[in-house]
Amino acid sequence: MTYCVALKLNAGLVFLSDSRTNAGLDQISSFRKAMVYEQPGERFMVLLSAGNLSLTQAVREVLESFQLPSSSGELLSIWNVRSMFDAARVLGAAVRHVYDREAAALQRTGVDFNISMIFGGQIQGEGMRLFQVYSAGNFIEATGETPYFQIGESKYGKPVLDRVITSETPLDEAAKCALVSMDSTLKSNLTVGLPLDLIVYENNRFATDKIVCLDANNPYLRMLHDSWGQRLRHVFDSIDDPAWDGGETATPIRVHSPLAHPIVKVGAPPQSPSAPEQGAGRMPPAALRQPIVPQQDGLNAAREYQRMQTAEEEARQSRQPSASLPSRSF
Amino acid sequence: MTYCVALKLNAGLVFLSDSRTNAGLDQISSFRKAMVYEQPGERFMVLLSAGNLSLTQAVREVLESFQLPSSSGELLSIWNVRSMFDAARVLGAAVRHVYDREAAALQRTGVDFNISMIFGGQIQGEGMRLFQVYSAGNFIEATGETPYFQIGESKYGKPVLDRVITSETPLDEAAKCALVSMDSTLKSNLTVGLPLDLIVYENNRFATDKIVCLDANNPYLRMLHDSWGQRLRHVFDSIDDPAWDGGETATPIRVHSPLAHPIVKVGAPPQSPSAPEQGAGRMPPAALRQPIVPQQDGLNAAREYQRMQTAEEEARQSRQPSASLPSRSF
Repeated sequence: MTYCVALKLNAGLVFLSDSRTNAGLDQISSFRKAMVYEQPGERFMVLLSAGNLSLTQAVREVLESFQLPSSSGELLSIWNVRSMFDAARVLGAAVRHVYDREAAALQRTGVDFNISMIFGGQIQGEGMRLFQVYSAGNFIEATGETPYFQIGESKYGKPVLDRVITSETPLDEAAKCALVSMDSTLKSNLTVGLPLDLIVYENNRFATDKIVCLDANNPYLRMLHDSWGQRLRHVFDSIDDPAWDGGETATPIRVHSPLAHPIVKVGAPPQSPSAPEQGAGRMPPAALRQPIVPQQDGLNAAREYQRMQTAEEEARQSRQPSASLPSRSF
Repeated sequence: MTYCVALKLNAGLVFLSDSRTNAGLDQISSFRKAMVYEQPGERFMVLLSAGNLSLTQAVREVLESFQLPSSSGELLSIWNVRSMFDAARVLGAAVRHVYDREAAALQRTGVDFNISMIFGGQIQGEGMRLFQVYSAGNFIEATGETPYFQIGESKYGKPVLDRVITSETPLDEAAKCALVSMDSTLKSNLTVGLPLDLIVYENNRFATDKIVCLDANNPYLRMLHDSWGQRLRHVFDSIDDPAWDGGETATPIRVHSPLAHPIVKVGAPPQSPSAPEQGAGRMPPAALRQPIVPQQDGLNAAREYQRMQTAEEEARQSRQPSASLPSRSF
């Protein structure tokens, strides 16, 4: 598998990819999943890819020189389009070109045309843009509400992104967050592995020199890994354990709630000689005995939890050092 | 979907399940996914289930009175078996019984026989045991090396379990960790929802009263959610951002490594009139231009990262308040 993540902030773009590729579990190797296309002062683009390696390599090869005929007769390439949207269209067309060449033969051997990509950057004359491109060559664009895309093994590293990232997040803080997200993924999934490619792009630069490849010896990655692990553990220890017997705690775990009744235990049926007093025979069937809450109340509770998250979100926003940030442009 | 997690510690067992069930995205409701079977002083068992609700409800209904003929002619039920292993066999047989009744008809409408369960507890005469049971009725047992099982949407909540849980973890701390794992999952996946069922069992009690149902108003869950979110954010802020220009930092992100060479940028091809000096025509094809590291070196680096994790693990073990814990029995 793979884990790639890209973030679109007001201040710039962050791209991070791992480099592990596996065919089954016993054929593991390292392949780079990021490509950087740069025409300094004019255009800057990064492509991250996941899925079948033979397909992603073919798409990357094709993309560099692919020409998509436009309705005006012009031949569009990533090197001459005037917008990232058109560049994403060229990439989508390159994916479809490879599909036409490869999919039928793959299907005969039971292999899906499986590919997913993140493509972002900036072209002189417009703002930065970030796209996620699917196997069919179609794509979606990141917006202020959803400023990041992930491909591959995305779930382990999603909670920290959801807690930290907004469009206002400063660029280096976002890079740190992407690395924490990757670190959590590396810890829990063997199909994601070092080294990592990190690319950080500042808005309106149309080039970058912030490109590094991080292996296990990288001082920053080591510091981040150790600090995060240790401090997470301290935070965990600093939160009270549940106090079952009430007592002094301000936050008891055992409270009466009209919405949440504890489970009714099932006892041995009366015919069990070892526990005749535990009769469950008079009870209704198992499923009916456990009505958790009326459905509507359950959804109300869920909505309330959402409100909790919104309050947290607001608190986070207010903590952002907004004075040092470019103003939000949308 | 669903998220359920169960932990087997030396001190006892922890079971936690959400209660959201969905058929597609627009049919969402609440169903309890945990069952408690108790014969006080004699046996205590908990079943958590995920998958097709009609199947898991049927298995639960069948399980309460299911009788599996043994080779000696005895009829085994969860109420008379002398080991949790045999109880898991009875559960597996109940799953197969439901399969025989339901699978063919489901298959005709294109529905898989999809079910996964966690089943654990203790029967007088042996230690606690914890099993994960699959659709085919087969099962695996948790051991000291892997003291937890997850079913359903397991990935979001796995990193914190991997960082915190060992067999030595105290029982209430493990319950707290399960709740943090659930909180991360609730935050990132809409198909997992409140209320939660939490069941904590102490070794050799053969009964428990630590059974609660937590909704969004639960004081402990609210405190945990707020504290974890805020303090995680503080930890994140307390770690240095990457310093690209070196300077004073002890942990630079840009260092030379023989194993990790930064990406070579792709420039516009010479035929592009706007940037004739960016010739990439003399370069080898894209894939060959990006050799990340020799494969063997990449695996060495991965092994080294594993060693980093082991050192962290050891540090964690040494922080455990082991004096207050029962001695490890295996």
